[in-house]
Amino acid sequence: MDVKPMKLKGKKIDLESGDHLVILHRDDAERMGLRSQSRVSVNKEGRNTTAVVEISESLIDKGEIGLVEKVIQDLKVTQGDELKVVQARRPESIEHIKEKLEGEELSTHGINEIIQDIVEGRLSDIELSAYVSGVYANGMSNREIKDLIHAMIDTGDRIEFDEHPVFDHHSIGGVPGNKITLLIVPIVAAAGLMIPKTSSRAISSAGGTADIFETLANVCLSVNEIKEIAEDVGGTIAWGGAVNLAPSDDMIIRAEYPLRIDPYAQVLASVLSKKKAAGAEYLVMDIPVGENTKVETIEKGRKYARDFVSLGEDIGIETRCALSYGGQPVGRAVGPAIEAKEALMALEGKDVPSSLIEKSTTLAGMVLEQGGISDGKEEAKRLLNSGEALDKMKQIIDKQGGDPEVTSDDVEIGEYSEDIRAVEEGYVDSINNHQIINIVRAAGGPHCKGAGLFLDKKKGDKVERDEVLYTIYSESKSELKKAVKAANHLKPLKVEGMILEEHPKVEKVC
Amino acid sequence: MDVKPMKLKGKKIDLESGDHLVILHRDDAERMGLRSQSRVSVNKEGRNTTAVVEISESLIDKGEIGLVEKVIQDLKVTQGDELKVVQARRPESIEHIKEKLEGEELSTHGINEIIQDIVEGRLSDIELSAYVSGVYANGMSNREIKDLIHAMIDTGDRIEFDEHPVFDHHSIGGVPGNKITLLIVPIVAAAGLMIPKTSSRAISSAGGTADIFETLANVCLSVNEIKEIAEDVGGTIAWGGAVNLAPSDDMIIRAEYPLRIDPYAQVLASVLSKKKAAGAEYLVMDIPVGENTKVETIEKGRKYARDFVSLGEDIGIETRCALSYGGQPVGRAVGPAIEAKEALMALEGKDVPSSLIEKSTTLAGMVLEQGGISDGKEEAKRLLNSGEALDKMKQIIDKQGGDPEVTSDDVEIGEYSEDIRAVEEGYVDSINNHQIINIVRAAGGPHCKGAGLFLDKKKGDKVERDEVLYTIYSESKSELKKAVKAANHLKPLKVEGMILEEHPKVEKVC
Repeated sequence: MDVKPMKLKGKKIDLESGDHLVILHRDDAERMGLRSQSRVSVNKEGRNTTAVVEISESLIDKGEIGLVEKVIQDLKVTQGDELKVVQARRPESIEHIKEKLEGEELSTHGINEIIQDIVEGRLSDIELSAYVSGVYANGMSNREIKDLIHAMIDTGDRIEFDEHPVFDHHSIGGVPGNKITLLIVPIVAAAGLMIPKTSSRAISSAGGTADIFETLANVCLSVNEIKEIAEDVGGTIAWGGAVNLAPSDDMIIRAEYPLRIDPYAQVLASVLSKKKAAGAEYLVMDIPVGENTKVETIEKGRKYARDFVSLGEDIGIETRCALSYGGQPVGRAVGPAIEAKEALMALEGKDVPSSLIEKSTTLAGMVLEQGGISDGKEEAKRLLNSGEALDKMKQIIDKQGGDPEVTSDDVEIGEYSEDIRAVEEGYVDSINNHQIINIVRAAGGPHCKGAGLFLDKKKGDKVERDEVLYTIYSESKSELKKAVKAANHLKPLKVEGMILEEHPKVEKVC
Repeated sequence: MDVKPMKLKGKKIDLESGDHLVILHRDDAERMGLRSQSRVSVNKEGRNTTAVVEISESLIDKGEIGLVEKVIQDLKVTQGDELKVVQARRPESIEHIKEKLEGEELSTHGINEIIQDIVEGRLSDIELSAYVSGVYANGMSNREIKDLIHAMIDTGDRIEFDEHPVFDHHSIGGVPGNKITLLIVPIVAAAGLMIPKTSSRAISSAGGTADIFETLANVCLSVNEIKEIAEDVGGTIAWGGAVNLAPSDDMIIRAEYPLRIDPYAQVLASVLSKKKAAGAEYLVMDIPVGENTKVETIEKGRKYARDFVSLGEDIGIETRCALSYGGQPVGRAVGPAIEAKEALMALEGKDVPSSLIEKSTTLAGMVLEQGGISDGKEEAKRLLNSGEALDKMKQIIDKQGGDPEVTSDDVEIGEYSEDIRAVEEGYVDSINNHQIINIVRAAGGPHCKGAGLFLDKKKGDKVERDEVLYTIYSESKSELKKAVKAANHLKPLKVEGMILEEHPKVEKVC
């Protein structure tokens, strides 16, 4: 009812939180009957956007309205432009969020409203968090998830390929050192199938695939570049954040991240909406299972697999899933540059852990079989061993603006390093994924691409006292020091002797 | 792991949202490894507080830290003071919030952590909203609620009376025009029992008891003033927001308000923690039941009643509850000043709706019976009719800095008014509480105390065509216009003829 529009002068401000935020002077807000967290519609010459209100007396003058970058872009405002500001209605989607908190199944319309309001910045942090909380607490039916996928696709861009079919792969992540995309994409492309892969940067990991490949080439490609490169050489590895595919996903993650929750339905919708918007027709999913990964039990992994296959079919993506071993890092290298190096070594036929080769060729083989190539894994191995995959990788690096002559020796790892040694002999009993990631982050990763960790020993390996367990790399002395301190505190590798205890205990007498 | 403390200069900023917020320059934030929504510990000479980080380049200079009022108070900072800023740990309470979202029963420790972190401003809006959402979605056991009440009491002040016993009453609200406290407090005090009542201001209503009584006296009393006045004249009506009783409640409401959710467990804990902190030993609860109130069904009302009684007993408050009729406003007046006027009229023995007298004396009578006075309702009526309650009210008004000689004629209602008339004859079939509130808010309430509405007709009344249904009052012409527009649109009173339809329909031929 409190509808008193005002004309205010736009003033650029920058605040990181909230894509759609405006700051009003307290007096103006009171005149309009607005309070902190109210919503306003901001209009300029036919363009309009909705924003959440913040109130201040010192940051903004009376008669002015502080605008963040996104609002400025939406309205094409120049400093000092006059804007019409009026209280906006309470979004209907809040009622649907409430329904989800109450355990109801949402209608297609309700889901569309929620995603639309998220993308258009109409929901405050409190409301967005209630949505994520509701989905986490009460889940979604497959019908709701399917609607959610469509709503997430429809509120963003899509890549329309002229060539078909379009193959894709994706890992739901959680296991460090998982540089398999840098092997799978060139193998699949070398087999003549088209695989335009969009990847994420690290959110809670030591380095996403986009961070890793960025040490070799440019990953910030436009929709047109992705299309051109894929149709030309058969493969790309691009950063998904540079294109506007299913953009609601990133906004939803903003609320999930501080809570460290991954609502099951949202994970399914997040992956499948991005893949569908990116044009995928065939998809192979990697689902790492193990303690300290996202999927901790085989039962949960199987449920994911079943739902990915069935929802994929519903939206027109033929999907196959592999549950993979996530009990320790894949390969030996963890961190952006060092993972790129290990992947290149594998393509060059150098000595790398067989677990990396096995996992990559199995998944690449599944893609090949979707493309009608029999004995997919064998063919994947052949393409790797023959050097055809390496040649393809060089073409992709070239097309993405990198140096096609790059070799694994050229990749620069942080110049400061320290070996962490065993304090006693025994066997490596376990490796904690989370703690490995924490050490690489302490060393500066993923922001500093040279930060990383190399595992000299993996699970089950015999270790002598004083032998090197792993090596930490960093681009700065102080961060290395911090990472070593973290390593000594966290002890990510547990070494046990074969004899754990003796009974009855023998008292030592000196 | 990212622990790089920095020394920054404090700079006062004002932003309404978030009690514990600091703004850092992007460069400083990056040096410390912080992002938007990170948490920092801010220290000055032994004092320290936790705050949520916001990042900017334009609002704050490098080397400075923007501080909101609450942080300035906590640390006793003067502009330009040097502060030590360091990344804070992720609060343990977030794990407990996650447990609640997963449907687990929280431990006493978990509940204490959550409430402590809320009070100390360690949770961001996203995290706070997830807590409220979790309690709304999954509820709490009575054991959890009891722990919650204790946690909410222990993180604030308490009023310790020298005289006993301490009586109190409370309405969970939702029905407009519920000015009963202005009758109950003087009646109970006139009977010689002590009733120090703390009340709220309007959150979503047209006026809370504190807003209403403020038109007659000062309601911003300190803990000591409440104690002194109650022990002297037997009663007070104070604004709860001016004292620090169970302060987590207001912070939790901040997240409930935009979602318009009242988690059941939180309502119980909110009321009982405030009452216990205010020293109550006996409590009479009013639970209005009806369409368009907080409690829509008698079953839900009974559940509230049972839980209030049982939880009250657990924490040492002898509680009785009355389920009251909430199907239309109580009395005829809705809005701060006009409700004060109607309450004074009742105390002065003037003609007011019997429903207001019945409800007030029934509830006051329940308090009297808790105090050992038999035939409570009869005694309450006697105290009202004899003028003893009016004399007591004058003493209370006097002690709270108002004019003790005030009469109902002196109370000023908004000078602009308009009658809303029936467009056809019939019977008032229903009155929509929400819409009544919306009209008063459109007229300027509760901010403008003169805004209000007087119901000339109530449910079941016979109405002639063109007869006045209700009158709207406002302090400004433009707001009156807005309220009238709202009234014509909302039509809060539904008038039906006795004959709703005739069959077969007679075609009119002219």
